[in-house]
Amino acid sequence: MLEADFSYIIDTFFAIFAMTLIIFMVPGFAMLEAGLVRTKNVTSVLTINTMIYAVASMTFFLIGYSYAFGSWENSSMSMYAAFLFQMAFVGKTVNIMSGGVSERVKIMPLTLFTIAMAGFIYPTIVNISWGANMLEGTVLALNMYDLAGSTVIHSTGGWALLAAIIIIGPRKGRYVNGKIRVIPASNIPLVVLGALLLWIGWFGFNGGSVGSISTKESADAVALTIMNTNTAGLSGAIIAGIIMYFRYHLLDITMILNGALGGLVAVTAGPDLYDMYTPIMVGAIGGALVVFAVPIFDKLRLDDPVGALSVHLVNGIWGTLAVGIFVESISFMDQLKGVLVVASFVFPSSLIVIFVINKIIKFRAEDDVQMEGLDVNEVGVEAYPEFKRAI
Amino acid sequence: MLEADFSYIIDTFFAIFAMTLIIFMVPGFAMLEAGLVRTKNVTSVLTINTMIYAVASMTFFLIGYSYAFGSWENSSMSMYAAFLFQMAFVGKTVNIMSGGVSERVKIMPLTLFTIAMAGFIYPTIVNISWGANMLEGTVLALNMYDLAGSTVIHSTGGWALLAAIIIIGPRKGRYVNGKIRVIPASNIPLVVLGALLLWIGWFGFNGGSVGSISTKESADAVALTIMNTNTAGLSGAIIAGIIMYFRYHLLDITMILNGALGGLVAVTAGPDLYDMYTPIMVGAIGGALVVFAVPIFDKLRLDDPVGALSVHLVNGIWGTLAVGIFVESISFMDQLKGVLVVASFVFPSSLIVIFVINKIIKFRAEDDVQMEGLDVNEVGVEAYPEFKRAI
Amino acid sequence: MLEADFSYIIDTFFAIFAMTLIIFMVPGFAMLEAGLVRTKNVTSVLTINTMIYAVASMTFFLIGYSYAFGSWENSSMSMYAAFLFQMAFVGKTVNIMSGGVSERVKIMPLTLFTIAMAGFIYPTIVNISWGANMLEGTVLALNMYDLAGSTVIHSTGGWALLAAIIIIGPRKGRYVNGKIRVIPASNIPLVVLGALLLWIGWFGFNGGSVGSISTKESADAVALTIMNTNTAGLSGAIIAGIIMYFRYHLLDITMILNGALGGLVAVTAGPDLYDMYTPIMVGAIGGALVVFAVPIFDKLRLDDPVGALSVHLVNGIWGTLAVGIFVESISFMDQLKGVLVVASFVFPSSLIVIFVINKIIKFRAEDDVQMEGLDVNEVGVEAYPEFKRAI
Repeated sequence: MLEADFSYIIDTFFAIFAMTLIIFMVPGFAMLEAGLVRTKNVTSVLTINTMIYAVASMTFFLIGYSYAFGSWENSSMSMYAAFLFQMAFVGKTVNIMSGGVSERVKIMPLTLFTIAMAGFIYPTIVNISWGANMLEGTVLALNMYDLAGSTVIHSTGGWALLAAIIIIGPRKGRYVNGKIRVIPASNIPLVVLGALLLWIGWFGFNGGSVGSISTKESADAVALTIMNTNTAGLSGAIIAGIIMYFRYHLLDITMILNGALGGLVAVTAGPDLYDMYTPIMVGAIGGALVVFAVPIFDKLRLDDPVGALSVHLVNGIWGTLAVGIFVESISFMDQLKGVLVVASFVFPSSLIVIFVINKIIKFRAEDDVQMEGLDVNEVGVEAYPEFKRAI
Repeated sequence: MLEADFSYIIDTFFAIFAMTLIIFMVPGFAMLEAGLVRTKNVTSVLTINTMIYAVASMTFFLIGYSYAFGSWENSSMSMYAAFLFQMAFVGKTVNIMSGGVSERVKIMPLTLFTIAMAGFIYPTIVNISWGANMLEGTVLALNMYDLAGSTVIHSTGGWALLAAIIIIGPRKGRYVNGKIRVIPASNIPLVVLGALLLWIGWFGFNGGSVGSISTKESADAVALTIMNTNTAGLSGAIIAGIIMYFRYHLLDITMILNGALGGLVAVTAGPDLYDMYTPIMVGAIGGALVVFAVPIFDKLRLDDPVGALSVHLVNGIWGTLAVGIFVESISFMDQLKGVLVVASFVFPSSLIVIFVINKIIKFRAEDDVQMEGLDVNEVGVEAYPEFKRAI
Repeated sequence: MLEADFSYIIDTFFAIFAMTLIIFMVPGFAMLEAGLVRTKNVTSVLTINTMIYAVASMTFFLIGYSYAFGSWENSSMSMYAAFLFQMAFVGKTVNIMSGGVSERVKIMPLTLFTIAMAGFIYPTIVNISWGANMLEGTVLALNMYDLAGSTVIHSTGGWALLAAIIIIGPRKGRYVNGKIRVIPASNIPLVVLGALLLWIGWFGFNGGSVGSISTKESADAVALTIMNTNTAGLSGAIIAGIIMYFRYHLLDITMILNGALGGLVAVTAGPDLYDMYTPIMVGAIGGALVVFAVPIFDKLRLDDPVGALSVHLVNGIWGTLAVGIFVESISFMDQLKGVLVVASFVFPSSLIVIFVINKIIKFRAEDDVQMEGLDVNEVGVEAYPEFKRAI
């Protein structure tokens, strides 16, 4: 057997394995968000998650992938496997955004935004970061190290979310007379299930981003990447738990899980470059950032029911910079430039696209629809019709 | 290393990977169906799903597999892996059937039918389609192309379901005075979780059915198969969403998911033969067929709480014929013959088996048991005992 | 390509695959236990499960792994993959223990015990069974065959649980005036989902424990192991169903699932050594043992809400002895010695550790906290705040 054939076969198999793990993030995000919102909006959130996977993936297939990478050609693995792996990423950027505007966003305008994100905004970022690189030779050309997308995926989704929150506004009744009303999650088992499925999906996300497992060196790199990814998640969960315990004497599970997710986002830029102890620090800072960022966004009246800004935007930035801090061969300034260039494209372009769509169909559900719940009005299906509501 | 050893090892690993994905369809079907029925029947449905996996797999191990394939010998991969992969399929044919008679079917007679299906009916179809081929040389010998079972699995399950519905009848209270009473699903997060787990399982089902990943050509075939499978699911979901939106201005998530499943069933016969754009069409027609078939079965008073006839029977047929339509090298008449031969064996034999079992133990729960819910009478365990019912 | 490189690459990939499956046991245990307890304790149970994964894995990374194996060196696969696979096991021993003291155990002392288990008790057992073997040359040196941990994992967790139940006592209101009060599970779909995820995780647990898939012989061993694992689960489920049906005419799904889990625990010591029919017997005895052990522990006033003593301790012992009974080349006395040595270390050391921690922070929640539910007091988050309680 030729060495090249061996690589082609094994790397195709490995990409399929990694892709499959990432697809578990589709139920992961769906369950996490369905658990975090009120029962009257659960079906709407689930429908949004399903439509995002369908529409984002199809758009990326028909338009975005060629734009991002310039070509379908791939010599080192099956081009279909290479596509599947990249396709599995796309919906995540919109999931991050849609989660943060839950409980007041309508499905159809969000679906239109999904097309713009998967066909234009996200592929542009991939193009200049991982792909065809249309900025090559210009002063804006990126030299950022971002293995699996702390910036390319997570802060991209985060900037789009910030733009969406600014235009759509908070949930009705969330900020009243200068007070913040606490709106509790409706189904904690779903929250835990969703977060753990995301965690498992991350092994595919980051491990698969190494791109090959068919040499001893790449096999080591994949295994180290997955180990470091997991360690940062462990560390983020533990630090969030410690902070909650010493502050409130309560181990708020939603905060612990968001701490884990914050650690996972943070390690995503460079899990293959760290030694096996550094992710403890990267993840701990990531988890702590989540705990401290959540109340700050609330003070800024940026209503984000799932904590997506704290998890994905803050840690997307932190994680990208962390590679420049902890890895000697990586330039901090290159990382910072990457963060800023991506921000300065994604935030305004999302703002414009959302503004334009909003002129055609309003993103924001009317107040009475929000009061009644979006499920009845948008989907026509209640999530739990047989269960009597206590509140 | 010998080429043959390499294939043996990699294909064994790949079959185990694919089998594992398919086993995720066990919780997939269980959650989907548990979410679609009323709370009073949830435990019963879950018990049925668990018993089907246990009994169908054991029966296939002890009887069905040898009958279907003639021998356990396998030179190209571990014979245990080859068995595991085939075993993972069996329960699905009964899941399809049991789901459609939910909320009025008793567990014990269904378990007896499971033995008949896994030990005789399904292995007969596998024998003549993929296996030992006892029809070889006769006029009935099949030349149907059915990679992963649009006919062998899905319409087989669908024909058995049709026979079961005819004998068992509709749920009490479903059709009253010429009116169809809408019975809403009790737990939409479970429906979404279940459908998405089925979707992921499909990658193993169809990808694994290529049978090998240990050459460049087969690696490409596997990756293309999984990509095409996914594309048809995306397309089925999108088309169902579009139809629901333009008809009702509501994005009914159960219909969108059934549209996705319809597309997945439809593509299953030939995902390795299509180019990468054809599944958009195959899946879209599949999704549309579901949307239009669901009310037709209701008009025919064929009560099917989960839409299994529309998803599995209609699209099992459509998907098998589609290979004959879209792939030049495949004869439409061979495909049609396959559909008809399978139908003319499975439907009457299921009818007879169900009729005979029904003489011993009635399949249909008595009216008062249906009113109280099957959980208390059949399992002795309520699904949600602490939650107050609203209806 | 060198044979050694091939093995290194494929076995690293396979270990990552197996590890991933095992990680599905984290949501598996979490959902199973969240479904089995009352709604007022659900969040607490979920928080415990999450903290166990985080703290046990981190402790094993920093302390336990080196103690168990003596070195991180690994020549036959990536050392990071070897670690990940072993790390995936650790939390399970505490999950077994924590599940059985649900609904009255506080999170912080349990977290401290997790550190002791993952840093000292469990690594000691691994050291003398699979690892560096500090007993070598002494009269206590073990010669037990325990492929994937019937004793090393399951009865270790079971002995720790027994110690915990003795010190912590039963739930308030469980045994009153000599009567046993039945406390029903609150969410059966979660129970089924959790048990099925555990089942799938077991394929990784046992299959991965073969340690290699990179020769024809090892590929066969892996496939046989997974097949036998599954068969024992099937058999345990079926026998539990049969016993329940003939005793009570009810197919209690929680018992059927515990029967399956009992079969899976039982087969775990020697799935690679059995022919393909023996696991039917091993699993059937395992399933029957669960059905008969559950009421016995209740008679002994050992309150175990999830049946963990019956599933893990009883079957951990049975499964280890079964290898000595059914496999000619294995000495029954060596197996028995292994069971006894492990018991005589784990039970007293757990008792001491729990006793000492209990002096610092009480494990047992106060009676009024138990009445109100642990969620409010320990986590500050209710599991289902919008659902009205019926009881």
